[in-house]
Amino acid sequence: MVVTDPDVLAGYRQDRALDPDAGTAAALVRPLTTEQVAATVRWAHEHRVPIVPRGAGTGLSGGATAQTGALLLSTEKMREISVDTVTRTAAVQPGLLNAEVKRTVAEHGLWYPPDPSSFEICSIGGNAATNAGGLCCVKYGVTTDYVLGMQVVLADGTAVRLGGPRLKDSAGLSLTKLFVGSEGTLGIITELTLRLLPAQPPQSTVVATFATLTAATDAILAITGQLRPSMLEFMDAVAINAVEDELRMGLDRTAAALLVARSDAPGEHAGHEADLMLAACEKAGATEAFRTDDPDEGEAFCAARRFAIPAVERKGPLLLEDVGVPLPRLGDLVTGIAEIAAQRGVLISVIAHAGDGNTHPLIVHDPADPDESERAHLAFGEIMALAIGLGGTITGEHGVGRLKKPWLADQLGPDVMALTRRIKDALDPHGILNPGAVL
Amino acid sequence: MVVTDPDVLAGYRQDRALDPDAGTAAALVRPLTTEQVAATVRWAHEHRVPIVPRGAGTGLSGGATAQTGALLLSTEKMREISVDTVTRTAAVQPGLLNAEVKRTVAEHGLWYPPDPSSFEICSIGGNAATNAGGLCCVKYGVTTDYVLGMQVVLADGTAVRLGGPRLKDSAGLSLTKLFVGSEGTLGIITELTLRLLPAQPPQSTVVATFATLTAATDAILAITGQLRPSMLEFMDAVAINAVEDELRMGLDRTAAALLVARSDAPGEHAGHEADLMLAACEKAGATEAFRTDDPDEGEAFCAARRFAIPAVERKGPLLLEDVGVPLPRLGDLVTGIAEIAAQRGVLISVIAHAGDGNTHPLIVHDPADPDESERAHLAFGEIMALAIGLGGTITGEHGVGRLKKPWLADQLGPDVMALTRRIKDALDPHGILNPGAVL
Repeated sequence: MVVTDPDVLAGYRQDRALDPDAGTAAALVRPLTTEQVAATVRWAHEHRVPIVPRGAGTGLSGGATAQTGALLLSTEKMREISVDTVTRTAAVQPGLLNAEVKRTVAEHGLWYPPDPSSFEICSIGGNAATNAGGLCCVKYGVTTDYVLGMQVVLADGTAVRLGGPRLKDSAGLSLTKLFVGSEGTLGIITELTLRLLPAQPPQSTVVATFATLTAATDAILAITGQLRPSMLEFMDAVAINAVEDELRMGLDRTAAALLVARSDAPGEHAGHEADLMLAACEKAGATEAFRTDDPDEGEAFCAARRFAIPAVERKGPLLLEDVGVPLPRLGDLVTGIAEIAAQRGVLISVIAHAGDGNTHPLIVHDPADPDESERAHLAFGEIMALAIGLGGTITGEHGVGRLKKPWLADQLGPDVMALTRRIKDALDPHGILNPGAVL
Repeated sequence: MVVTDPDVLAGYRQDRALDPDAGTAAALVRPLTTEQVAATVRWAHEHRVPIVPRGAGTGLSGGATAQTGALLLSTEKMREISVDTVTRTAAVQPGLLNAEVKRTVAEHGLWYPPDPSSFEICSIGGNAATNAGGLCCVKYGVTTDYVLGMQVVLADGTAVRLGGPRLKDSAGLSLTKLFVGSEGTLGIITELTLRLLPAQPPQSTVVATFATLTAATDAILAITGQLRPSMLEFMDAVAINAVEDELRMGLDRTAAALLVARSDAPGEHAGHEADLMLAACEKAGATEAFRTDDPDEGEAFCAARRFAIPAVERKGPLLLEDVGVPLPRLGDLVTGIAEIAAQRGVLISVIAHAGDGNTHPLIVHDPADPDESERAHLAFGEIMALAIGLGGTITGEHGVGRLKKPWLADQLGPDVMALTRRIKDALDPHGILNPGAVL
């Protein structure tokens, strides 16, 4: 069960944040059961060996970066799932991919909404650890809204069961929700009880292009002021062109912004909501806008949006941001990012889950060019400072990990940091759980 | 600001649980602002004086029972609210009643879903403290699903701001959610950022009566297996007759159970879902079943259901239960409660938010009859043990308070109790916040 082969360990040194400060772990374990996780943590607790837990390794903030001398605990082999159609819940081990959870529950006519763009490759355990979001969150909320219970192994190796397949439970503290988003710093989640919805109705899709960023953000506010779209996504000119370079689907390369908006209201109401969104785009000055009820065509535009990150990445390595602001400040954020890009002389493409104010500025830089790399990292920090100044967050859905840790106190302030530290110390007094992440 | 008049203090000794072990508080404060709450708690912290926080005093588990020598902190005068239609959120002080929040946001075309039966008299701060539920939770979730942020005063008097008007925020631990449901034991909530939805569409209502409990629970499972009703409520024969005694609305006094089910799907889809629910009731053997799209008539049946607790209370003082089970075990719970009632020789009426498995067995007893009272209290505990045995919870939406504390460890187990204690000690090392509640 314990792997110490350096070649194998090398594959587990980093997640997709590619943290340059990754260390060399002592060993890797890939347990199959809660009991094996508990036994591993008990051993680590006794010997005061730090543990870095990881799921599929697709994290974007360095939450799974290997630490020198640490034990890597990968949940990738914990892949069981059972679906209960009566309580409309699933009991899921953390190593299953988000897409696998979606597919399995869909076989029962059910739907697990949270949908990170990486849903085909990210694990459900990692989703819970980071309180991951996605594209449908603008209407359906984030991972924590779907976690009703869990089994979690604490820092001393004790496995506890929290919550369960019940919508309502006021017995004791809301511990389940505390572990969601704790990035492996308070415990290791070994099973999740997920709330499911009935299958999503067919969606109607609106695609619109705009000559200016302002026109696009006006359209976003006009849409969300009227209704709750099931998706409202934004791509800027750089992203449009990068996607068009790869997919050749006829996107308008001259546009400053493209919106993809969807409605999943029942029956003909989806089309009605789509028409309202179409009218809002046209009124805001869209250069082109159309509605499609064809599922394949709608999905093609969503896939194009999801493909934006890899498409822009072909221009060069990315520093990937995840800042969010209250929706009225979205325009200020987008224009502020453009100013930072101009001042620092770096290419920054902005894509966004626009409907909930969560943006992913993509800072393109060449790590082999120390000067450009430094400017890119300065921009990375300035974008977070900008978001904080606009009443926003340094991370909407990726987590703090190690890459964003230097900015966390700027957002939360010293009192909330102290409160966080008190909880961490109470639950992990020897600091063995994912040391260096978040705190 | 500080009140020590014994006559005034007497009005704050208990909440609606009427805890017989209520003590005599030293004083009462009714602050207006977060700063005044913080100043009060700082003083209490310095002098090690315990604080019992309370909202509207409508709690049903004794969470606000006065403790001898303690300071009572009532949030009743903290009544400000501001609504932001763009982020679809409201910033609310804790003393506002749930109904006042609903009415204010409705003026902006928005909806705050959680709807305890006591919504006209319970405070939004108390709702957050207990993670309160209600009737629409079967589709729309509970209070925690609508709390995006808060201002909270910690045990040393530090006021911190957590979260904010953002659907997505993965920066740091999920502290907002930890304070929801903490029943005043970790901090005192002085402001809430609430997530709002667009106004609820008109509802279609189904009312059905059944000759047996089994037929009714069969109908419940058949309905929830097909769709998500916006309400699915249950009353047994005792409740039906008690309500009919008071309201004279023509309910079938011979029925063993009555269901009120609603759909708020858009447009004609509400009627379509109502027809599916009607068919499910008829197939399960309803003695009578009908659908109405008339809002007043539908609301009259919902009001009848909400009136069940006061109506049964006219038969005698109640011990009010709040146990929940996973939905497939609802029939076992209802029949098990009937067995306990027969064995203990006490009258127990069962009403339920049936769609989410949350029931309110109402144990009628005469406190002046020591023997009956003892049997009622034995039944109270046996019902919780039954719910725990069925994989359920001792409280779905009322909280543990002081009345249910003896059973909490039976549900959570020693390891989760120890985890809870570690968090409590870390956040309130001197134990001054609502001592004796929950833990």
